[in-house]
Amino acid sequence: MTAIDQSLFMRALRREPVERTPIWLMRQAGRYLPEYRATRERAGSFLDLAGNPELACEVTLQPIERYGFDAAILFSDILILPHVMGRGLGFKPGEGPYFERPVRSAADIDALPMPDANEDTDYVMEAVRLIRSALPQGTPLIGFAGSPWTVATYMIEGRSSKDFARAKKLLLADPEAAGRLMNHLADATADYLAAQVEAGADALMIFDSWGGVLSPRLYHAFSLASQARIVERLKSSCPDVPVILFGKGCGQHLEALVDTGCAGLGVDWTLDLSEARVRVGDKVALQGNLDPAVLLTNPEVIAAETRRVLDSFGDGPGHVFNLGHGITPDVPPEHVSVLVETVREHSRRE
Amino acid sequence: MTAIDQSLFMRALRREPVERTPIWLMRQAGRYLPEYRATRERAGSFLDLAGNPELACEVTLQPIERYGFDAAILFSDILILPHVMGRGLGFKPGEGPYFERPVRSAADIDALPMPDANEDTDYVMEAVRLIRSALPQGTPLIGFAGSPWTVATYMIEGRSSKDFARAKKLLLADPEAAGRLMNHLADATADYLAAQVEAGADALMIFDSWGGVLSPRLYHAFSLASQARIVERLKSSCPDVPVILFGKGCGQHLEALVDTGCAGLGVDWTLDLSEARVRVGDKVALQGNLDPAVLLTNPEVIAAETRRVLDSFGDGPGHVFNLGHGITPDVPPEHVSVLVETVREHSRRE
Repeated sequence: MTAIDQSLFMRALRREPVERTPIWLMRQAGRYLPEYRATRERAGSFLDLAGNPELACEVTLQPIERYGFDAAILFSDILILPHVMGRGLGFKPGEGPYFERPVRSAADIDALPMPDANEDTDYVMEAVRLIRSALPQGTPLIGFAGSPWTVATYMIEGRSSKDFARAKKLLLADPEAAGRLMNHLADATADYLAAQVEAGADALMIFDSWGGVLSPRLYHAFSLASQARIVERLKSSCPDVPVILFGKGCGQHLEALVDTGCAGLGVDWTLDLSEARVRVGDKVALQGNLDPAVLLTNPEVIAAETRRVLDSFGDGPGHVFNLGHGITPDVPPEHVSVLVETVREHSRRE
Repeated sequence: MTAIDQSLFMRALRREPVERTPIWLMRQAGRYLPEYRATRERAGSFLDLAGNPELACEVTLQPIERYGFDAAILFSDILILPHVMGRGLGFKPGEGPYFERPVRSAADIDALPMPDANEDTDYVMEAVRLIRSALPQGTPLIGFAGSPWTVATYMIEGRSSKDFARAKKLLLADPEAAGRLMNHLADATADYLAAQVEAGADALMIFDSWGGVLSPRLYHAFSLASQARIVERLKSSCPDVPVILFGKGCGQHLEALVDTGCAGLGVDWTLDLSEARVRVGDKVALQGNLDPAVLLTNPEVIAAETRRVLDSFGDGPGHVFNLGHGITPDVPPEHVSVLVETVREHSRRE
């Protein structure tokens, strides 16, 4: 067994007993850290940073160095994959991502190329290799991608959306073309994630930020089905690598997500971990779920709410502490210290 | 029994058998209608329109005249009540509502006046009276207000919010002051709704647009508790008037919402009505729940998805057809005709 396999994070994902609950935070390498903002300024744009393996490695390691988190997560973006499919990704300050060439027709869908993960996203794989060799021994590295449905919303809408009208219209009015898009994205994503494992990732995560905006029928047919397809493909290419599925606002679908064969489920803060645990039983580990807004309060509240999350999960194996969504740029870094210390102290087992 | 009491809408809310499923749409008097845009242009700002009883009556009746909906809903806004508490409501084009004087401290909360519904919101009550006398005989009128939590988010943030950081901070860091704010808003809202009934409203609805952003603990302590307080107060002031609670993203809380003693629950599209019906049993009627984005597709899809919603509820009493959220401004009016006709045809009982 390697030091990585024996790490708190990997053991918790296997639902083995641990001395204390492991912790990392979604978007832990990010704008709330002054050292991140300094690197970002040197890099130029967000894409310049994500596209530069040395700098991506540098920012990935910053929160590990500062807080000693129990896992690192590759610094990248869920839209890199559609970007290399030729849609022209950009970021407008204050407005988020956009695509210069949105997918607007079945013909657009059928013309999408299948990227070669090691060629078209070589800078991502190089970043994974650099991070893997720079990380402290025994700190696992998480690779990731967006879910096909979530990625598709940006590809179709061309930007962030409030009502996802165009994307939903595709699912409703041309389900065959929508299904082809989901399958294409699922296959590309499975290749992309397998390449990250080959480059050194120890665990994988799929972010389904917008699964929660769908009706149950559309969720099952598109968001869930395409995630299940990825998990199944990864089972043959890298069967021992745990996959964590995170769906924001998808609390009602936990049981269905378990059935994909994933190792862990990310849970947002609108669900009690105690309830989630009853529902998923001993089938998967759970990751979550402090509301990131708690980090904007004060040390006393942060400590109390952190203990509440730990107590809600309770004793027993299978908990990875995290936020219920990404950390926001306005969080004071010292508030994160309070969170980390509280998890370490309160979850310690005799 | 009056014609109103015998209307499809009121009978469905009492879970009595009906010849066909009644239908109305949240925000049915709105920008998707050219006649609304014409009246709005004559009125000036949104607040000018909501503050003018004659024009508010005019736009309330427009969708009744065009589509023959089975219920009218007062044209107003959930922020009128905090507006008359002196916070200075305004609307920025494209950005939504804002308050000039947000609530930022416990002192601000304790200084909030208790409005006199018949004096401070006399224009609302006058609009209710005008609408009541202008409506076709037998068409019920729904009065409404925002939930205390949802209204409080705007009062505290001063505007629409993405993460509700300030509002959540109040709940977490000063729960006593937050509780006082909820109680104050609940009492003012109960008075406001009772005055609408006195002026002629036949049913009442409370919109909790942002209940779904809270953790279960905060939801129960603040959003749910304050809605329950309103329902309880209305039980003594107008015991025969049905109250419908609509919480967006609150599907996991249906059972708790039933326990408030409400007559009906609005359900968004992320929940199957078949599942919702099993969970609430015969205790309340259900209102919903077509995804408003469906109205942006095409007639075939609209008809198919509408039938799906009706079939999901199935036979048996207690369904009021509606969208799962407000209709959006970009919906072609003829698409609404397809929806209405489909409901009328497909739900007809022999």
